[in-house]
Amino acid sequence: MNKRMIYLDNAATTPVLDEVLEEMLPYMSARYGNPSSLHSVGRDAKAALDKARERICNALNMDGSGSMVIFTSGATEANNLAIKGFAYRMLRDGISKDDLMVIASSIEHESVLEPCRALEKEGFNVRYLPVDKDGMLKSESLEHILASSKCKSILVSVMLANNEVGTIQRLKEIAEVAHKYGAFVHSDAAQAIGKVKVDARELAVDMLTISAHKAYGPKGIGALCISKDVRLEPILHGGGHEYGLRSGTQNVPGIVGLGKVAELVPRFIALYQGRVRQLRDRLIKGLLEIPYTRLNGHPEERLANNAHISFLGVNGEDLIIKLDEHGIAVSTGSACSTLKQKESHVLRAMGLSREEINGSLRLTLGIQNDEQDVDYTLEVMADVVRELRRVSPYSKYRS
Amino acid sequence: MNKRMIYLDNAATTPVLDEVLEEMLPYMSARYGNPSSLHSVGRDAKAALDKARERICNALNMDGSGSMVIFTSGATEANNLAIKGFAYRMLRDGISKDDLMVIASSIEHESVLEPCRALEKEGFNVRYLPVDKDGMLKSESLEHILASSKCKSILVSVMLANNEVGTIQRLKEIAEVAHKYGAFVHSDAAQAIGKVKVDARELAVDMLTISAHKAYGPKGIGALCISKDVRLEPILHGGGHEYGLRSGTQNVPGIVGLGKVAELVPRFIALYQGRVRQLRDRLIKGLLEIPYTRLNGHPEERLANNAHISFLGVNGEDLIIKLDEHGIAVSTGSACSTLKQKESHVLRAMGLSREEINGSLRLTLGIQNDEQDVDYTLEVMADVVRELRRVSPYSKYRS
Repeated sequence: MNKRMIYLDNAATTPVLDEVLEEMLPYMSARYGNPSSLHSVGRDAKAALDKARERICNALNMDGSGSMVIFTSGATEANNLAIKGFAYRMLRDGISKDDLMVIASSIEHESVLEPCRALEKEGFNVRYLPVDKDGMLKSESLEHILASSKCKSILVSVMLANNEVGTIQRLKEIAEVAHKYGAFVHSDAAQAIGKVKVDARELAVDMLTISAHKAYGPKGIGALCISKDVRLEPILHGGGHEYGLRSGTQNVPGIVGLGKVAELVPRFIALYQGRVRQLRDRLIKGLLEIPYTRLNGHPEERLANNAHISFLGVNGEDLIIKLDEHGIAVSTGSACSTLKQKESHVLRAMGLSREEINGSLRLTLGIQNDEQDVDYTLEVMADVVRELRRVSPYSKYRS
Repeated sequence: MNKRMIYLDNAATTPVLDEVLEEMLPYMSARYGNPSSLHSVGRDAKAALDKARERICNALNMDGSGSMVIFTSGATEANNLAIKGFAYRMLRDGISKDDLMVIASSIEHESVLEPCRALEKEGFNVRYLPVDKDGMLKSESLEHILASSKCKSILVSVMLANNEVGTIQRLKEIAEVAHKYGAFVHSDAAQAIGKVKVDARELAVDMLTISAHKAYGPKGIGALCISKDVRLEPILHGGGHEYGLRSGTQNVPGIVGLGKVAELVPRFIALYQGRVRQLRDRLIKGLLEIPYTRLNGHPEERLANNAHISFLGVNGEDLIIKLDEHGIAVSTGSACSTLKQKESHVLRAMGLSREEINGSLRLTLGIQNDEQDVDYTLEVMADVVRELRRVSPYSKYRS
């Protein structure tokens, strides 16, 4: 980590901004109380939690409606709580598995899909919604399932913005359809926060997952924000923290960091929608000038920082290694999926060919990137792709 | 938080030590990679995780035996993973609920007891072990259950040191009995780490819960350390992090902090067993000079920093408020239990009277306390107890 890296993997994680860290630090040392303690050291920590909750409610436009912010260890836990917490609570409330259904899009993050699969194994009804070639969900396919379902209790989970290809769903439309049939709506907004406006009231979602570390906050903290009508069963049992829905001493510095991120959201959105979007357009334009390439994800309805490109005849992981040697950090898809070393389920759901999937690369810009980063990347990329294609078995892509 | 507090609530939480924070900070900003990323920024973060795992294995003497350190958001999650993860995995492996049993001591932390109760509600066999008046478990009562049980798969969960009264269990003896009957042993060592030697091999436990924020590390991070024979079902599903047992982007700075705590363990133990123990003895001696008081927990086999005293005729919460006004931070029992505002299950299990429970106070020293803290506390306490007793309905304790 000596040389400077051009970091174009901001969908995987981001550095903590100085002003975020600055607010967190006092809660590491001088103001270290346990928010559950009755004494003033504890009450001081409790006040910090209250302030963070308020900032988050403000940022998501969900204050004053009896909604709750439940702090979790991150988006994965929040998604697990939303999906499994809902299903188990319905079960506890006397609704049978036959009367219960969870519907998720087929391009959700693994932290939504895996809980769904776990529920499936336990005999719950789970359905997965298809997407089109741009990764966009059709509300008709949701309506089709809902109209023919006799289930009493249904949860629909659709992410706001996809972590791999950046496609932004028409969530409001989806939520309207779901509510027409009395279903609850959860949305994983981990990738969307700070990049597009996330207005819980306007979107009319019942549960919203957010995370700090994708938006210049610390790792290890997130939240599930729920409307007052949502009933959940906790996943982590214990002392009864977070309205009894998530036990465990709260990560006060992390929560303060997430609260600060929430406060900074308008500034982040302005940056992403302005400068970052321009950089991304320059990046995409340049990358598509390389022969045998295609842009994945929706051409317009996509995150302002996401460029997801298939380089035919090249292996994405080889590209990562080569670019890394040149001081450029990118990824193939989600960081998590590298653990499982399997083909992207998102690209498969979008109908990409094996070759398009194999050659795909995700470049995600951040507020710290500049034009030089983009131009250097374009220069290196052209060389690296040419070089890799020279040794590739797919001779047709040699140039 | 302007005035200086004498903080005697170190069992609730502790400040992050400067040298711990110093190691964490680079991973907030310059070294912010996602450990799952393939590029060098990610690999740098991955290396930090590896180092932390190694330090933890060293501290717990569990290296080289195929054991695993699974990072969690804290002790609560680690305890949930140990208890529910074990039960659900056995179920998945085809063992019926009738053939499965979880045995916990009746003075476990809520984050062990509540998962046990959740399992009970689902129809699992759960048994709770009694303790004597000092909060000490008798291995005979465990043997009695095990000898008469026909269950194929049994987990015994016994904490190493109690968070309220500080009693240290004879864990090795308990583990020996459990293993004689083929049971697995989990121990919540969240309160013990850094205060007494925790040698996983010597104690012969199969799972060990640790936490950072009780030992001068950050909040929001802990670990479940498991031996190679333990099979678990994950609680948080997703990207497959932590050997597939705990999904979610790792909290790298937190993990680095926990690793540093592990490295500092020998120094902490020396401090606790030396200076802190002397301070605690001085504190206990002085407090017991106040009339109508008694020490709770085992008189010798207790944490070196724990003084747990019943002040008859006084309400513990009134004491907290009064002491807080004098700049002294203490608690009645566990910080978590204040959320539920219920009588301590630990003191009840030890057979204390309602009056003894009502008047109980936990004072827990830390490495930052000194003689002046103790002497000032003793002085204030005598006055405050006298004052409260004057207005108490229990006139017999007026002095």
